Amino acid sequence: MSRRGRFITLEGGEGVGKSTNLALVADWLEARGLEVVRTREPGGTSRAEAIRALLLDPDGEEPLDHDAELLLVFAARAQHLARQIRPALARGAWVVCDRFTDATFAYQGGGRGIEVSRIAELEAFVQRGLEPDLTLLLDMPMEAAQQRLEGRLDRDGGERDRFERERASFFEAVRQAYLARAAAAPGRMVVIDASADLPTVQARLLSELETRVASWG
Amino acid sequence: MSRRGRFITLEGGEGVGKSTNLALVADWLEARGLEVVRTREPGGTSRAEAIRALLLDPDGEEPLDHDAELLLVFAARAQHLARQIRPALARGAWVVCDRFTDATFAYQGGGRGIEVSRIAELEAFVQRGLEPDLTLLLDMPMEAAQQRLEGRLDRDGGERDRFERERASFFEAVRQAYLARAAAAPGRMVVIDASADLPTVQARLLSELETRVASWG
Repeated sequence: MSRRGRFITLEGGEGVGKSTNLALVADWLEARGLEVVRTREPGGTSRAEAIRALLLDPDGEEPLDHDAELLLVFAARAQHLARQIRPALARGAWVVCDRFTDATFAYQGGGRGIEVSRIAELEAFVQRGLEPDLTLLLDMPMEAAQQRLEGRLDRDGGERDRFERERASFFEAVRQAYLARAAAAPGRMVVIDASADLPTVQARLLSELETRVASWG
Repeated sequence: MSRRGRFITLEGGEGVGKSTNLALVADWLEARGLEVVRTREPGGTSRAEAIRALLLDPDGEEPLDHDAELLLVFAARAQHLARQIRPALARGAWVVCDRFTDATFAYQGGGRGIEVSRIAELEAFVQRGLEPDLTLLLDMPMEAAQQRLEGRLDRDGGERDRFERERASFFEAVRQAYLARAAAAPGRMVVIDASADLPTVQARLLSELETRVASWG
């Protein structure tokens, strides 16, 4: 196995099981003696989490402009890259991140309708060529994911954030944008059917992970 | 005088007297029966002011990355344009704003050293061609401005924000970047010597304003 750190992201809409499966991936890597940094977007550092809070704060009298939302997402990403992701990769750690730029294409592109070219412009601006080595996209039909989300909100008694309050058409657009991204980048992105039972999903996930990690040598 | 709203910005470093002179400009326009919106950047709307707070929050253990700072500035600007500036201009109001994108070229460009081309890219992204009709740049030697700033902080008992804590070389770079902007855009920007006594500065400001407003017909 190479000494260079690798960058693995988990993607998918609300309720597809990213948290559980991120822990699985990180644990699997750590069991192989690797240093693993578990993180998330938007957020991952103190200042980036403060930007996340602005993004999730439900719209009251002043809705957040779509361009402002997009720029906040990339501001948080710039901070996360500078203070967390790039230093970790440079010292040889593996970074496992809950959402990254594919989520921006899905939510701000598919969901909000911002042109893909505008998102790609900011991606190039902030990332300067860095992208994940592997992206695991957890996919399931929108209705099933919404049921899981509602179950979680009922259990936790949590309020819905700005994104969780969106309509079904928003989440369907997010899902389709994710699938389009995966179809366009088959070398980097793997679609995992997340509607199966958890052991089946996890077996598929680890099988894909093992194959990729082995191919990196 | 035309019915179309005009966009006037005041620029300059800390301590040059922007607040006092912004009130003078706005009062002068209102006395002519115009609807005037007084605003500032970063900020100007509730959400944009929340972004301003992140920008001014002094660096503790986690310094703000330069790209993240720049993207936050433009996120606040996108929100301000969408929710305040563009609607005001569209209904025929005049907007008088304490700082705008020239400040980004001065602070993030001159002060932080971000390449001008990177700032110009985000300017085009967010503003889509909109720029001020007139920019009044209040200029004075850096030492004099710093003395005024210190006097104000002593009077108000305020803490220095992230920018006010910068070194003298930062403020000198900000001033030089402002002057370079003005030299490159003489049709839009007017440099006002702000080191003179207040009545002299104000007379010069109103004289420039009157000439410009008359030329707009």
